Amino acid sequence: MGQNNEFAHRMGNKTIKLVDASGNPVAGKEVTLNLTNHKFLFGCSLFDAIDVANENVPADRLAFQKEKIDKFLDVFNSATLPFYWARFEPERGKPQTKELKATAQWLKDRNVAVKGHPLCWHTLAAPWLLEMSNEEILKAQLDRIERDVTDFKGLVDTWDVINEVVIMPIFDKYDNGITRLSQELGRVGIVKEMFAKTREMNPDATLLINDFNTSINYEILIDGCLNAGVPIDVIGIQSHQHQGYWGREKLEEVLERFSHFGLPIHFTENTLTSGHIMPPEIEDLNDYQIADWPTTPEYEERQAREVEEMYTILFKHPLVESITTWKFSDDGAWLGAPAGFLRKDNSPKPSYDVLKRLIKEDWHTNVTVKTDQNGQLSFEGYLGEYELDCDGKKASFHLEKESGVEKVEI
Amino acid sequence: MGQNNEFAHRMGNKTIKLVDASGNPVAGKEVTLNLTNHKFLFGCSLFDAIDVANENVPADRLAFQKEKIDKFLDVFNSATLPFYWARFEPERGKPQTKELKATAQWLKDRNVAVKGHPLCWHTLAAPWLLEMSNEEILKAQLDRIERDVTDFKGLVDTWDVINEVVIMPIFDKYDNGITRLSQELGRVGIVKEMFAKTREMNPDATLLINDFNTSINYEILIDGCLNAGVPIDVIGIQSHQHQGYWGREKLEEVLERFSHFGLPIHFTENTLTSGHIMPPEIEDLNDYQIADWPTTPEYEERQAREVEEMYTILFKHPLVESITTWKFSDDGAWLGAPAGFLRKDNSPKPSYDVLKRLIKEDWHTNVTVKTDQNGQLSFEGYLGEYELDCDGKKASFHLEKESGVEKVEI
Repeated sequence: MGQNNEFAHRMGNKTIKLVDASGNPVAGKEVTLNLTNHKFLFGCSLFDAIDVANENVPADRLAFQKEKIDKFLDVFNSATLPFYWARFEPERGKPQTKELKATAQWLKDRNVAVKGHPLCWHTLAAPWLLEMSNEEILKAQLDRIERDVTDFKGLVDTWDVINEVVIMPIFDKYDNGITRLSQELGRVGIVKEMFAKTREMNPDATLLINDFNTSINYEILIDGCLNAGVPIDVIGIQSHQHQGYWGREKLEEVLERFSHFGLPIHFTENTLTSGHIMPPEIEDLNDYQIADWPTTPEYEERQAREVEEMYTILFKHPLVESITTWKFSDDGAWLGAPAGFLRKDNSPKPSYDVLKRLIKEDWHTNVTVKTDQNGQLSFEGYLGEYELDCDGKKASFHLEKESGVEKVEI
Repeated sequence: MGQNNEFAHRMGNKTIKLVDASGNPVAGKEVTLNLTNHKFLFGCSLFDAIDVANENVPADRLAFQKEKIDKFLDVFNSATLPFYWARFEPERGKPQTKELKATAQWLKDRNVAVKGHPLCWHTLAAPWLLEMSNEEILKAQLDRIERDVTDFKGLVDTWDVINEVVIMPIFDKYDNGITRLSQELGRVGIVKEMFAKTREMNPDATLLINDFNTSINYEILIDGCLNAGVPIDVIGIQSHQHQGYWGREKLEEVLERFSHFGLPIHFTENTLTSGHIMPPEIEDLNDYQIADWPTTPEYEERQAREVEEMYTILFKHPLVESITTWKFSDDGAWLGAPAGFLRKDNSPKPSYDVLKRLIKEDWHTNVTVKTDQNGQLSFEGYLGEYELDCDGKKASFHLEKESGVEKVEI
């Protein structure tokens, strides 16, 4: 607490005037102030939450999933839910709105912020777009945004609006409606259309552009979009490191370049595995298909060290507001990689323990302060939601960067 | 003539009604129609024209330069003149306006279209910018555009507004005012400022963005600029091939990608040498400094073949409107490369003869047609300026793509 100037941007000072039910100052009392939820978003992709919220899997699987999600809830405060069009609406007009709404609500009830991923992407585009003209594809895509952003307003107010635009018009693995559309509209053109519609449907939402390409290409794309008036709130950066940890130098270089825009940065899809490294010659990670990719004790230690370094670098950077690991558990992880904080049997890896320590101890605030004769106390802490406890009487409040004196009644 | 459908976009049909001074039809007469100036711009960088126009070099050098320029005038109809800020205005407030105006006028008098290169570039930026704040640099740069574009209006109505923006903010060979400015404004931001001012000062000018980077970076930059409302008229593509001819495949691939914007394309700085190939490991061409880079008979034949293939591919492409070779003669060529159509002694290389044949014979129109009883004749030819000759009486006219019936008096 207070020891780290390097985290000063994550902290605030606050004065609380504690009063009782009659409005009288609670003077000379010991008060405990405990951070219950970070303002910073520590997240994971958490598609498993669908099973738990909807209870639509066999009992043994449900119990396993519940155990998994409990471990998630113990550390994290943010989750990414899947809105891949091909899966969300495999048959046109029959979207899985009900299941996803139940899931988003379930997470919201547990104080987890939810992001929807993604509204527009060439991969997992709805297959039925292929029958359409580009004009019809555009209409269907905008209708999809209109419907889903409206349906989930209040539950999902953060969206990956468009994903991987740098490669979108030159994506040539297979024909798909969104690549066709991006070729016609151009990159900035399609970004503009998607953001305009999303913003229209949810004016207060947090809207991300997201990409795995961290080269100058993505910088120029963002520069072009911003100059063209696209209302990007947050720059999303993917960091799937199946081929090895970027390391401090590359990470800081990427941060430096994308900081020029002055916009918040979210690390949206982070992967650090606890297995062997994917060979460097693989260009598209999807091309690496192996029968078994084991997690090992040695690599689990490496993963834990890398997680600690990377999260610390990102938490120190003033523009970074969120880190999402992709994904929480090895169970069902992309490419079969040992990419999670949990092993396939739900047992936590060292990386889980490291991150839990960082979030719940090192970067945590839990202080006891005595109120003065006016019932006032001042403290410094990490930004977020707090619970105040005075002789067993509780109240909650927010600690923001700019705080005046807040009257709190117990 | 008329044999090549592949050049149909370069040709037009026209009907002329020939009348005499009294307005009577000139019926049943043989008329010769000769293309005197292509609409397509076949150009070179021609900084040597400054010597000839200003006659400010010793007599023997002047004679040599005149011989050089005569050979240029025999084939080409377009020239690029240097406006590198560090050379054009080495001392602040003392620009070489007089010399350059004389040169532009001299070329205009000889029916040569002139392009100014460049208005904004980090390389050869005025050194005195280094003393300034970014705000002052921006003002000085915009003032420079205001002054020069105004001074040269009517003589130079085509400008490389900004050069090599992709690398501009990350150029790290040496500190310079324009890189600093581009870092503050961003790439699209600086392009926007420069184009807005140039357009303001010469609303009818043809404005180019120009780059040697032909990767996806440049595509995204252009896409961003266009979406941000930057009034780019022409996409400029540099093609310095000191490290070997791109070949048909790469050339067609570049054309395909940059055609998506539907804008005219100028090949602004083409180099095909008649010497050995620069090693591929050189990243910045400027790093290759050798004492002697000879032109050889064998490589001159190679250059001629490459020139013929490349010019033919570009001339066939409907969006390409200009090819400028950088530069016309080996004498004083960049990097000492044998990059010209002439050797250092002004003798023409095979590439010169090849290009002269293409421009003056293969892609030339010279036809004789008989007028009918109404004095009318119709013909098809390459677009451009024509001279009509009927029994020694002459007149000139333009052949454009969309032509009605034009009355021509002799």
